[in-house]
Amino acid sequence: MHMLKNDIALLHRLADTAAEAILPHFRQLPSIENKAAEGFDPVTIADKAAETAMRRVLEEAAPDDAILGEEQDDRAGTTGRTWIIDPIDGTRGFMTGLPTWGVLVAIAEADGPHTGMMSQPFVGDRFFASPEGAFHADASGRTRPIATRECPTIDQAILASTSPRDFDPASRARFETLADACRMVRFGTDCYAYAMLAAGHIDVVVERGLKPFDIAPFVPIIERAGGSLTDWSGNRIGPTLPSAYGGEAVAVGDKRLLEPILAILNG
Amino acid sequence: MHMLKNDIALLHRLADTAAEAILPHFRQLPSIENKAAEGFDPVTIADKAAETAMRRVLEEAAPDDAILGEEQDDRAGTTGRTWIIDPIDGTRGFMTGLPTWGVLVAIAEADGPHTGMMSQPFVGDRFFASPEGAFHADASGRTRPIATRECPTIDQAILASTSPRDFDPASRARFETLADACRMVRFGTDCYAYAMLAAGHIDVVVERGLKPFDIAPFVPIIERAGGSLTDWSGNRIGPTLPSAYGGEAVAVGDKRLLEPILAILNG
Repeated sequence: MHMLKNDIALLHRLADTAAEAILPHFRQLPSIENKAAEGFDPVTIADKAAETAMRRVLEEAAPDDAILGEEQDDRAGTTGRTWIIDPIDGTRGFMTGLPTWGVLVAIAEADGPHTGMMSQPFVGDRFFASPEGAFHADASGRTRPIATRECPTIDQAILASTSPRDFDPASRARFETLADACRMVRFGTDCYAYAMLAAGHIDVVVERGLKPFDIAPFVPIIERAGGSLTDWSGNRIGPTLPSAYGGEAVAVGDKRLLEPILAILNG
Repeated sequence: MHMLKNDIALLHRLADTAAEAILPHFRQLPSIENKAAEGFDPVTIADKAAETAMRRVLEEAAPDDAILGEEQDDRAGTTGRTWIIDPIDGTRGFMTGLPTWGVLVAIAEADGPHTGMMSQPFVGDRFFASPEGAFHADASGRTRPIATRECPTIDQAILASTSPRDFDPASRARFETLADACRMVRFGTDCYAYAMLAAGHIDVVVERGLKPFDIAPFVPIIERAGGSLTDWSGNRIGPTLPSAYGGEAVAVGDKRLLEPILAILNG
C-alpha cells in the first residue's frame, strides 16, 4: 500500500476522465435506428468510451497493476494491485435520466479493496477512501471527512435497496420482513445508497446479485467511515473481491444492527 | 390566463427562493437532541422555511391569488387562480441525502393547473410548462423544449414508481402484473419520474396516495410535452385539482399505452 496520495490523485483523474467520456451521452435519446442495433444505446456507448479512456490513463500511470473492468478483458499485473472499475454503476438510473448513477473505481490487494471512489459527475459528488479515512468532496471541491451515524435498533433504521424485484422469491420475502421492521425504506438508490450510509444518512443497505465492480470502492469507504460491509452470512466482503465474491451485500452504519439483520435475512 | 411570461418569471423566482431556504439544510444531520423533539428535523425545518419564504414572495407578487400549500393554511383569493406549492416533494429522498427531491409549484384555474415547475436545486434541473409548451432548463440556464417519446407497446416501456410498498395489497398486485409486462422498472423516482417522462426518458409512471401538491405542475408539463396524466380510471387529473383529487396517477408519454395499462390496473 504505497503512494497513497498519488492513488487518491489518480482516482480523481480517473473520475475526471470518466465524466468527460460519459456526460455528453447522459439524457441523450437513442434514435430509432440506434435502438435497432442491439446494445447500441447511449448508456452502452458511454460505458465503453469511459472504460477505454480510464484504461488508457491506467496504462500510463499504473502500467504494472492489474485491471478488472466491466466491459473489457482483465489485464494481468505484477504488483499485486488490481484496479476494479465500473464506468457507470446504475445503468437503469442513467437510462431514465436520473442523477443517481456513479463511476466506481477501487484498488484491491490480497485483503480486498483498500482505496476507492464513487463519483457522480452530473451532481458533482465524490465519495472516496484510503486506509487513512473516508471523505466527501462536493461540486466546489470542498472535502470533508464522513462518518456513519449511530442507530442501535432496527426500528430506528432507514433501509435502502435498489429494487425489491432484484431478489429471488425467498430472499425477497426476507427482505420484506426486514423492511416491515425498519422505520423507512428507500428504493432506486444504486451506488448512492452505500455512499449515503457512509455519510450518515442511511443505516442499512441490503442487496443481492451484485458484481465485484458494483461494490469494490465501498469496502474502504464504509469501513473507514465506521460501518461494516459483509455478505448475508456476516463475512467481510473485502477478502472475497475480486475473485470469490458471491454478490450479496449487507451494509450497516452502526455495527449493532448487523446481528439482528442477519437473523432476519437468514430466518 | 394572463401574463404568461410574468408567471414563468415568478416560478423561477419562487424556485430561487425555495433553493435558498432549503439547501443549507440538505444533508445536515439532525442532532440527537433535535431528533427527540418530534418533527424537528432538517427536512421539516427546510420545508417550513421554504414555504414561508415562497408565500412571502406571492403575497407581494400575486396578492389576490389563492395559495394552497402543504405546511400552512390555505389562503383564499379573488382572481380564480390558485398557487399550489410543495417546497420539498420526496422527503424520503431528502432525508437519505439523495438528489431526487424537488420543489413543486403550479398555477391552477377552473380546469386545473395550466402552468407549473419542478426545480431540483442541488442538481440544477428545472422542468416547467405554460400553455405555450414544456421546457427543461439545466444548471447553466440553457433552456430547451421537451417532449415525450414514442412507445407503442407495454413490453417496450420503462415504468417508474416511488415504491411498491406505497400501494395497498390489491393495487400492489396489479402494479406487479404491470411491472412484469414492462421492459424495465425503476423505483425511488418521486417527482423526477414525471419530469423524466415529459423529457422522453420514462414511458409510464403509476402511483397512488398522492396529494394535490405532489402532482399539480406535472399536469401542464406532461400534457404540453405530448403525454397524458390521468387517474386509474382514465380521467384527466387537471380538473380534479386542487379540490377533488383522489390521489391516483397514471402518466404515459405515448397515449397508445393508456388503454392497455388501465386494463391491467383495473383487471
